[in-house]
Amino acid sequence: MNTKIDETGDFKPAFNDGGLIAAIAVDHVTKEVYMMAWMNKDALIKTIETGIVHYWSRSRQKLWKKGETSGNVQHVKSIKVDCDQDALLIEIEQVGGGACHTGRKTCFYRELDITTKKLKFS
Amino acid sequence: MNTKIDETGDFKPAFNDGGLIAAIAVDHVTKEVYMMAWMNKDALIKTIETGIVHYWSRSRQKLWKKGETSGNVQHVKSIKVDCDQDALLIEIEQVGGGACHTGRKTCFYRELDITTKKLKFS
Repeated sequence: MNTKIDETGDFKPAFNDGGLIAAIAVDHVTKEVYMMAWMNKDALIKTIETGIVHYWSRSRQKLWKKGETSGNVQHVKSIKVDCDQDALLIEIEQVGGGACHTGRKTCFYRELDITTKKLKFS
Repeated sequence: MNTKIDETGDFKPAFNDGGLIAAIAVDHVTKEVYMMAWMNKDALIKTIETGIVHYWSRSRQKLWKKGETSGNVQHVKSIKVDCDQDALLIEIEQVGGGACHTGRKTCFYRELDITTKKLKFS
Protein backbone atom coordinates (compact mmCIF):
# COMPACT_ATOMS: atom_id res chain seq x y z
CA MET A 1 0.00 0.00 0.00
CA ASN A 2 1.33 3.40 -1.00
CA THR A 3 1.18 5.59 2.11
CA LYS A 4 1.71 8.74 0.05
CA ILE A 5 -1.50 8.01 -1.78
CA ASP A 6 -3.28 7.21 1.49
CA GLU A 7 -2.67 10.64 2.97
CA THR A 8 -2.52 12.99 0.03
CA GLY A 9 -5.02 15.74 -0.60
CA ASP A 10 -4.46 15.36 -4.33
CA PHE A 11 -7.08 13.57 -6.37
CA LYS A 12 -5.23 10.90 -8.33
CA PRO A 13 -7.78 8.30 -9.39
CA ALA A 14 -6.01 5.02 -10.13
CA PHE A 15 -7.59 3.78 -13.33
CA ASN A 16 -6.93 0.10 -14.00
CA ASP A 17 -5.19 -1.36 -17.05
CA GLY A 18 -8.45 -0.97 -18.95
CA GLY A 19 -8.62 2.71 -18.04
CA LEU A 20 -11.49 2.19 -15.61
CA ILE A 21 -12.23 2.85 -11.95
CA ALA A 22 -15.00 1.24 -9.90
CA ALA A 23 -17.80 3.57 -8.81
CA ILE A 24 -20.25 2.65 -6.06
CA ALA A 25 -23.47 4.67 -6.08
CA VAL A 26 -25.26 5.05 -2.74
CA ASP A 27 -28.36 6.97 -1.72
CA HIS A 28 -27.28 10.25 -0.15
CA VAL A 29 -29.84 9.98 2.65
CA THR A 30 -30.17 6.29 3.54
CA LYS A 31 -26.59 5.35 2.44
CA GLU A 32 -28.05 2.22 0.80
CA VAL A 33 -25.85 0.88 -2.00
CA TYR A 34 -27.77 1.07 -5.27
CA MET A 35 -25.24 -0.16 -7.81
CA MET A 36 -21.63 -0.59 -8.79
CA ALA A 37 -20.43 0.35 -12.24
CA TRP A 38 -17.32 1.67 -13.94
CA MET A 39 -16.04 5.05 -15.03
CA ASN A 40 -13.30 5.95 -17.44
CA LYS A 41 -11.63 9.33 -17.29
CA ASP A 42 -14.20 10.93 -19.61
CA ALA A 43 -17.11 9.59 -17.57
CA LEU A 44 -15.56 10.89 -14.37
CA ILE A 45 -14.94 14.34 -15.86
CA LYS A 46 -18.52 14.49 -17.21
CA THR A 47 -19.83 13.46 -13.80
CA ILE A 48 -17.87 16.19 -12.05
CA GLU A 49 -18.68 18.87 -14.64
CA THR A 50 -22.40 18.18 -14.97
CA GLY A 51 -23.30 16.91 -11.50
CA ILE A 52 -25.04 13.99 -13.22
CA VAL A 53 -23.49 10.54 -12.94
CA HIS A 54 -21.93 9.15 -16.11
CA TYR A 55 -20.44 5.69 -16.34
CA TRP A 56 -18.53 3.75 -18.97
CA SER A 57 -20.62 0.94 -20.36
CA ARG A 58 -18.36 -2.06 -20.71
CA SER A 59 -20.98 -4.02 -22.68
CA ARG A 60 -21.68 -1.20 -25.12
CA GLN A 61 -18.18 0.27 -24.96
CA LYS A 62 -19.46 3.82 -24.74
CA LEU A 63 -20.04 6.69 -22.37
CA TRP A 64 -23.25 6.03 -20.48
CA LYS A 65 -25.24 8.85 -18.99
CA LYS A 66 -27.27 6.87 -16.47
CA GLY A 67 -30.99 7.48 -17.07
CA GLU A 68 -30.48 9.20 -20.42
CA THR A 69 -33.44 7.42 -22.00
CA SER A 70 -35.54 6.69 -18.90
CA GLY A 71 -35.04 10.05 -17.25
CA ASN A 72 -33.94 8.27 -14.07
CA VAL A 73 -30.71 10.22 -13.76
CA GLN A 74 -28.49 10.31 -10.70
CA HIS A 75 -27.65 13.70 -9.21
CA VAL A 76 -24.25 13.86 -7.53
CA LYS A 77 -24.26 14.90 -3.88
CA SER A 78 -20.65 13.97 -3.09
CA ILE A 79 -17.74 12.02 -4.50
CA LYS A 80 -15.40 10.16 -2.20
CA VAL A 81 -12.31 8.11 -2.99
CA ASP A 82 -10.80 5.23 -1.07
CA CYS A 83 -7.35 4.92 0.51
CA ASP A 84 -5.53 3.72 -2.61
CA GLN A 85 -7.74 5.77 -4.93
CA ASP A 86 -8.93 2.84 -7.03
CA ALA A 87 -12.60 3.06 -6.06
CA LEU A 88 -15.09 5.92 -5.90
CA LEU A 89 -18.10 6.28 -3.65
CA ILE A 90 -20.75 8.55 -5.15
CA GLU A 91 -23.58 9.77 -2.95
CA ILE A 92 -26.53 10.38 -5.24
CA GLU A 93 -30.10 11.51 -5.41
CA GLN A 94 -31.77 8.95 -7.66
CA VAL A 95 -34.51 10.39 -9.89
CA GLY A 96 -37.43 8.07 -10.64
CA GLY A 97 -38.22 4.64 -9.34
CA GLY A 98 -34.83 3.09 -9.05
CA ALA A 99 -31.24 2.70 -10.07
CA CYS A 100 -31.56 -0.85 -11.40
CA HIS A 101 -32.49 -1.52 -15.03
CA THR A 102 -34.98 -4.10 -13.69
CA GLY A 103 -36.98 -1.23 -12.21
CA ARG A 104 -35.88 -1.97 -8.68
CA LYS A 105 -34.47 0.67 -6.36
CA THR A 106 -31.17 -1.14 -5.94
CA CYS A 107 -29.32 -3.68 -8.06
CA PHE A 108 -28.64 -5.69 -4.89
CA TYR A 109 -32.11 -7.21 -4.53
CA ARG A 110 -31.06 -10.81 -3.93
CA GLU A 111 -29.48 -12.27 -0.83
CA LEU A 112 -27.57 -15.51 -0.62
CA ASP A 113 -29.10 -18.15 1.62
CA ILE A 114 -25.98 -19.61 3.19
CA THR A 115 -27.65 -22.97 3.83
CA THR A 116 -29.30 -23.63 0.49
CA LYS A 117 -26.85 -21.56 -1.63
CA LYS A 118 -29.91 -20.14 -3.38
CA LEU A 119 -30.79 -16.48 -3.77
CA LYS A 120 -33.74 -14.97 -1.94
CA PHE A 121 -35.42 -11.95 -3.53
CA SER A 122 -36.03 -8.96 -1.31
CA MET B 1 -27.94 -7.47 -19.93
CA ASN B 2 -28.92 -11.12 -19.45
CA THR B 3 -32.48 -11.12 -18.11
CA LYS B 4 -32.17 -14.77 -17.10
CA ILE B 5 -29.40 -13.80 -14.73
CA ASP B 6 -31.40 -10.84 -13.44
CA GLU B 7 -34.28 -12.97 -12.24
CA THR B 8 -32.74 -16.29 -11.32
CA GLY B 9 -32.64 -17.68 -7.82
CA ASP B 10 -29.41 -19.47 -8.64
CA PHE B 11 -26.18 -18.03 -7.32
CA LYS B 12 -23.88 -17.72 -10.31
CA PRO B 13 -21.17 -15.21 -9.41
CA ALA B 14 -19.66 -13.78 -12.60
CA PHE B 15 -15.93 -13.75 -11.95
CA ASN B 16 -14.01 -11.56 -14.39
CA ASP B 17 -11.23 -12.67 -16.72
CA GLY B 18 -8.84 -12.56 -13.78
CA GLY B 19 -11.12 -14.85 -11.78
CA LEU B 20 -12.24 -12.06 -9.45
CA ILE B 21 -15.49 -10.45 -8.35
CA ALA B 22 -15.84 -7.07 -6.65
CA ALA B 23 -16.99 -7.14 -3.03
CA ILE B 24 -18.33 -4.08 -1.25
CA ALA B 25 -18.28 -4.30 2.55
CA VAL B 26 -20.85 -2.20 4.41
CA ASP B 27 -21.68 -1.88 8.09
CA HIS B 28 -24.68 -4.07 8.83
CA VAL B 29 -26.33 -1.42 11.02
CA THR B 30 -25.48 1.98 9.51
CA LYS B 31 -25.09 0.68 5.91
CA GLU B 32 -21.98 2.86 5.56
CA VAL B 33 -19.61 1.60 2.89
CA TYR B 34 -16.33 0.63 4.53
CA MET B 35 -14.29 -0.72 1.63
CA MET B 36 -14.25 -2.37 -1.76
CA ALA B 37 -11.96 -5.29 -2.46
CA TRP B 38 -11.87 -8.41 -4.58
CA MET B 39 -12.67 -12.08 -4.07
CA ASN B 40 -11.70 -15.08 -6.10
CA LYS B 41 -13.67 -18.30 -5.87
CA ASP B 42 -11.63 -19.60 -2.94
CA ALA B 43 -12.06 -16.36 -0.99
CA LEU B 44 -15.80 -16.41 -1.57
CA ILE B 45 -16.08 -20.05 -0.47
CA LYS B 46 -14.00 -19.34 2.65
CA THR B 47 -16.17 -16.32 3.42
CA ILE B 48 -19.36 -18.37 3.15
CA GLU B 49 -18.00 -21.36 5.05
CA THR B 50 -16.43 -19.47 7.94
CA GLY B 51 -18.67 -16.41 8.24
CA ILE B 52 -15.49 -14.30 8.24
CA VAL B 53 -14.73 -12.16 5.20
CA HIS B 54 -11.82 -13.32 3.03
CA TYR B 55 -10.61 -11.40 0.01
CA TRP B 56 -8.05 -11.99 -2.69
CA SER B 57 -5.10 -9.66 -2.31
CA ARG B 58 -4.16 -8.49 -5.80
CA SER B 59 -0.94 -6.86 -4.55
CA ARG B 60 0.21 -9.94 -2.63
CA GLN B 61 -1.50 -12.44 -4.94
CA LYS B 62 -2.80 -14.52 -2.07
CA LEU B 63 -5.88 -15.30 -0.06
CA TRP B 64 -6.38 -12.53 2.48
CA LYS B 65 -8.31 -13.12 5.67
CA LYS B 66 -9.11 -9.52 6.54
CA GLY B 67 -7.85 -8.75 10.04
CA GLU B 68 -5.78 -11.94 10.32
CA THR B 69 -2.87 -10.11 11.94
CA SER B 70 -4.68 -7.15 13.54
CA GLY B 71 -7.65 -9.13 14.81
CA ASN B 72 -9.96 -6.66 13.11
CA VAL B 73 -11.92 -9.33 11.29
CA GLN B 74 -15.22 -8.81 9.51
CA HIS B 75 -18.15 -11.01 10.52
CA VAL B 76 -20.59 -11.72 7.71
CA LYS B 77 -24.19 -10.72 8.36
CA SER B 78 -25.48 -11.10 4.80
CA ILE B 79 -24.23 -11.51 1.25
CA LYS B 80 -26.13 -9.92 -1.61
CA VAL B 81 -25.42 -10.02 -5.34
CA ASP B 82 -26.31 -7.48 -8.01
CA CYS B 83 -28.49 -7.91 -11.09
CA ASP B 84 -25.78 -9.27 -13.39
CA GLN B 85 -24.01 -11.07 -10.55
CA ASP B 86 -20.66 -9.38 -11.04
CA ALA B 87 -20.60 -7.56 -7.70
CA LEU B 88 -21.22 -8.63 -4.12
CA LEU B 89 -22.51 -6.56 -1.23
CA ILE B 90 -21.42 -7.93 2.13
CA GLU B 91 -23.06 -6.63 5.28
CA ILE B 92 -20.52 -6.99 8.05
CA GLU B 93 -19.86 -6.46 11.69
CA GLN B 94 -16.40 -4.92 11.83
CA VAL B 95 -14.32 -5.98 14.81
CA GLY B 96 -11.92 -3.37 16.20
CA GLY B 97 -11.41 0.22 15.22
CA GLY B 98 -11.94 0.16 11.52
CA ALA B 99 -11.87 -1.53 8.16
CA CYS B 100 -9.16 0.63 6.65
CA HIS B 101 -5.46 -0.25 6.96
CA THR B 102 -4.90 3.41 7.92
CA GLY B 103 -6.83 2.78 11.13
CA ARG B 104 -9.89 4.63 9.94
CA LYS B 105 -13.38 3.18 10.11
CA THR B 106 -13.89 3.41 6.37
CA CYS B 107 -11.51 3.53 3.42
CA PHE B 108 -13.60 6.36 1.95
CA TYR B 109 -12.35 9.14 4.24
CA ARG B 110 -11.66 11.76 1.57
CA GLU B 111 -14.19 13.73 -0.41
CA LEU B 112 -13.55 15.53 -3.66
CA ASP B 113 -13.99 19.28 -3.55
CA ILE B 114 -15.60 19.88 -6.92
CA THR B 115 -14.33 23.45 -7.12
CA THR B 116 -10.68 22.99 -6.14
CA LYS B 117 -10.37 19.36 -7.33
CA LYS B 118 -8.62 18.68 -4.03
CA LEU B 119 -9.54 16.04 -1.46
CA LYS B 120 -10.96 17.00 1.91
CA PHE B 121 -10.34 14.61 4.79
CA SER B 122 -13.35 13.69 6.88
